[in-house]
Amino acid sequence: MNEHRETGAGDTVVLKLGGSLITEKDRPETLDGESLADACDAVAAALSEGTVDGLVVVHGGGSFGHHHASEHGVSTTTGTGDVGAVMDVHGAMTTLNQLVLARLHERDVPAVPVHPLSLAARPDGVNGELDLPIGSTATLLEEGFVPVLHGDGVATADAGVTVVSGDEIVVELATALDARRVGVCSTVPGVLDGDGEVIRRIDTVEAVADALDGSDATDVSGGMAAKVRELLALDAPASVFGADGLVAFLRGEEPGTRIG
Amino acid sequence: MNEHRETGAGDTVVLKLGGSLITEKDRPETLDGESLADACDAVAAALSEGTVDGLVVVHGGGSFGHHHASEHGVSTTTGTGDVGAVMDVHGAMTTLNQLVLARLHERDVPAVPVHPLSLAARPDGVNGELDLPIGSTATLLEEGFVPVLHGDGVATADAGVTVVSGDEIVVELATALDARRVGVCSTVPGVLDGDGEVIRRIDTVEAVADALDGSDATDVSGGMAAKVRELLALDAPASVFGADGLVAFLRGEEPGTRIG
Repeated sequence: MNEHRETGAGDTVVLKLGGSLITEKDRPETLDGESLADACDAVAAALSEGTVDGLVVVHGGGSFGHHHASEHGVSTTTGTGDVGAVMDVHGAMTTLNQLVLARLHERDVPAVPVHPLSLAARPDGVNGELDLPIGSTATLLEEGFVPVLHGDGVATADAGVTVVSGDEIVVELATALDARRVGVCSTVPGVLDGDGEVIRRIDTVEAVADALDGSDATDVSGGMAAKVRELLALDAPASVFGADGLVAFLRGEEPGTRIG
Repeated sequence: MNEHRETGAGDTVVLKLGGSLITEKDRPETLDGESLADACDAVAAALSEGTVDGLVVVHGGGSFGHHHASEHGVSTTTGTGDVGAVMDVHGAMTTLNQLVLARLHERDVPAVPVHPLSLAARPDGVNGELDLPIGSTATLLEEGFVPVLHGDGVATADAGVTVVSGDEIVVELATALDARRVGVCSTVPGVLDGDGEVIRRIDTVEAVADALDGSDATDVSGGMAAKVRELLALDAPASVFGADGLVAFLRGEEPGTRIG
């Protein structure tokens, strides 16, 4: 038996492992095995050393989910009623989830899959709130397991099934679980300013705009600005960092950019 | 796209396919391929003929789930904190679920997996209520999909992960979805009296006791009596029938034993 955690709310760490980190983003359904192994080593060490007590992992889709989603024209705002498309996206994501779980199990991390398609809904349509009940995740955590969620399909009123991103799940979980800290680990070392330097700290929405306005890559900064705004809205402090920062984050340090 | 269902609550049919029906119960992880194919034929025909508008399928564990659960000493009241045991039970059930889904997809049934381990919890322990949020299932139904649930592991306070039976899920879903009808299809032709005859109708708890008291097989009748009591407590009428009754049930008839 795992030791039951008798700790209250507020001890949980929510860790996002970006799809770009754990997969080869340009080759369909290809794992970045080395990066994933390194990330799983860091998670296993943190749990066995006790620097983290209560961990939820959320991973992105990378070349597994995104490939199929774009092939079928499915996104967070455009759904599909074609069950073949739903199963392609969900199947690829559960395959990736199984690969992540297997590497965690090899390192004695008591990881348990939690599939958003089984769990979540957008009952008010593509522009409505995400309904993500956390009973299963919270109870798994309390019982000493490590729930592992992922980007997935999600049933959406009047749209069939749309995509729910790992980032959206991170924000929902952090709020609902009253997380202590949130970590977003990807292939960039943090939120970058117009000169490509890591911004050490962002604590207001204005600072986001100022810092990111100078960036060349409009697309990326647009996406990053939205992500930063969502993380800023959380009660819990969040850190955005690269693979090099994961061990430090799990030790309680603040690598990359601290948000909020 | 599937046609969106614009019908309100009360149209949904919840169909349980017993583990004993779709697997060879005495041989570990062995499908009863013929029975499963017949059941999937009946489901596909009912949907294409429009005799059912809104269907949720729940399947039992049969020789997939039960084998691993008993090997690890896990039951509805005895949990495990061993992630290997959890993954053995859940893995076997998701394998069976994939086999069921594949056969439904072959017949153009828009079946989508909903895994209870991702969804459900017993937050008050083994004797507490099952928390089974139905947002995903309800929205999938409204969007024209056929959610397929199954017996599974479930996170349970102070007990790790216990088993949730397909029967328990049927009762919860039927209540929460305000189902119109519930069908329990297994290898017995209905609820049998002491002489082995099918009881055509049971509508009071007293009738259950009277009818089943005479039965020789104490174990079976004990289990059946509990099942009948749970079905009696539902608002929706339930039918308990064998493989021969499935087509009739899906046409709106009442084969086997009608309960409630």
